[in-house]
Amino acid sequence: MSIPHPYLMFLGDAPDQLAAKTADGVARWRPDWCIGQYRMDGCNADLGLPDMTLEEAAEAGARTLIIGVANRGGKISPAWQEVMVRALELDMDIASGLHNKVIDVPAVAEVARLKGRGLYDVRHPSREFDVGTGETRSGRRLLTVGTDCSVGKMFASLALEREMRARGLNADFRATGQTGILIAGDGVSVDAVVSDFISGATEWLSPANDPDHWDVIEGQGSLFHASFAGVSLGLLHGAQADVLVMCHEPGRPHMRGLPGQPLPDIQECIDLNERCARLTNPAAKVVGIACNTSALSAPEAERQMAELAERYGMPCVDPMRGGVGPIVDTLM
Amino acid sequence: MSIPHPYLMFLGDAPDQLAAKTADGVARWRPDWCIGQYRMDGCNADLGLPDMTLEEAAEAGARTLIIGVANRGGKISPAWQEVMVRALELDMDIASGLHNKVIDVPAVAEVARLKGRGLYDVRHPSREFDVGTGETRSGRRLLTVGTDCSVGKMFASLALEREMRARGLNADFRATGQTGILIAGDGVSVDAVVSDFISGATEWLSPANDPDHWDVIEGQGSLFHASFAGVSLGLLHGAQADVLVMCHEPGRPHMRGLPGQPLPDIQECIDLNERCARLTNPAAKVVGIACNTSALSAPEAERQMAELAERYGMPCVDPMRGGVGPIVDTLM
Repeated sequence: MSIPHPYLMFLGDAPDQLAAKTADGVARWRPDWCIGQYRMDGCNADLGLPDMTLEEAAEAGARTLIIGVANRGGKISPAWQEVMVRALELDMDIASGLHNKVIDVPAVAEVARLKGRGLYDVRHPSREFDVGTGETRSGRRLLTVGTDCSVGKMFASLALEREMRARGLNADFRATGQTGILIAGDGVSVDAVVSDFISGATEWLSPANDPDHWDVIEGQGSLFHASFAGVSLGLLHGAQADVLVMCHEPGRPHMRGLPGQPLPDIQECIDLNERCARLTNPAAKVVGIACNTSALSAPEAERQMAELAERYGMPCVDPMRGGVGPIVDTLM
Repeated sequence: MSIPHPYLMFLGDAPDQLAAKTADGVARWRPDWCIGQYRMDGCNADLGLPDMTLEEAAEAGARTLIIGVANRGGKISPAWQEVMVRALELDMDIASGLHNKVIDVPAVAEVARLKGRGLYDVRHPSREFDVGTGETRSGRRLLTVGTDCSVGKMFASLALEREMRARGLNADFRATGQTGILIAGDGVSVDAVVSDFISGATEWLSPANDPDHWDVIEGQGSLFHASFAGVSLGLLHGAQADVLVMCHEPGRPHMRGLPGQPLPDIQECIDLNERCARLTNPAAKVVGIACNTSALSAPEAERQMAELAERYGMPCVDPMRGGVGPIVDTLM
């Protein structure tokens, strides 16, 4: 696909900042792509971008309206529809991270067709994939893996891409989830791919490249998550990663969404990821730990990360707090 | 779904027996459900069932026409369409293991609608599934796993169900692939499920049951197959199996479809399957090995199976040659 930017960020009537989490991630990681925000009555979210009308945004060069907000009740309201139709009339494309597809709203689909505009429902793969082959391909690859879901794999991946580029490395973030796709402008929502094609979709996403090029691939789920481990394993095999970064949130009481299921021991999680990854890349190795310590005080976070670094003999960082420099050091 | 039987087996214009492999599996395992076969000009396959016209089959009580044959060029020919429409007119349902859907043939879909008949495209899930929870459920479960794809997991599962029932155990085969679904009359083609729902679909397939009831779940792929391991892991977690049976074909030169990728060591395959299975069932254990020795002479097969049994300290059988009794002994 490749979603055209600059973006106008649609926040709709988001009741709070959390409902606009996807938009927030896009604005944080692609500030230069986001020229403004469009808010409706009752919106309590704010990305800190200039508020614009659709006409102002079009005038300023906006090429895509980004729907990066959870909609109430899972339906696209008539008020939202009206905004989308107007954006299309002003020659913008629409990219959406909603569960329900924008392309399934007849009025929107019809205007998009008439105007020849693109509708990108990024949660839903729009391509067919081949099955994975496991064949070695050129270029280097890094994959973020995790002890659980939602521990900061996307965030860590983006921080790694940024730091690698700052050091002059040739690196590209490869998105595997909706927010990441809006940030990258392209990608595959792997958990929505038919299960026969998980590793094939990942191979497609991170194809052969220059020997010194790095793909920084956003991981999903965990090999220890009873709901989603199949996705994680397909990703691991398809990514053919040279380097794995283990993502973790200290203090989590149980696996996300699964009360009573404890988190795995980090060493066990490192071992199983390396073991499985070596099926398609015998050199695969976990080189660092990225923690989400947002629930801890700064001194407590420092203490726990120092302890993990010592115990596992590799750098342990919080991408939000001190950056991922020590992990990138290991790649130089 | 629950596909109604008796079945009339449609062999079309299958060029050879291999093209009718699915139909052959159904006739072998459900001889009492298969009242006849329907062959067209140029058909070189034969299930050893009485040849019947559609009218004769309807008269004899056939309730479903089973399309268990590979079609040439991936298209449903006009000649096939004609047969399907006539079967519907005679009040039969149609169940198909084809890649392309019978329901996508307008003439067939229309007659089915008018007559109120069922069309079962068993490769394509027709339900929505929840994500898996990993929560412990009652009843006992056996899952066949493998060193590779297509090593006889379905065959072993069906042989185990048959033997367990013969011993008075309360056992049900649970199908996860197209041929298995036609044999069971129900099931889920897990490799066609959206990847977020692999383990959830498997939990749905083998729900809570009486404490002494056995689900015998057909495995798919292999944790060591670079194309399909994600499916295998989701199945392993969703099945929550107490007992695993390792399926293997001695002498295979490489992983199926992946030249250059060697088969895993059996011990390594046992270890990884047990380790991963224990996430949702800490008691999971491989209790036997089912070999497909069809490429070996009988004495050579005996020798190799005795060696495997000795080396791994568990029964090793060929379901085709000596039956699976020694594995069922371990469950009694």
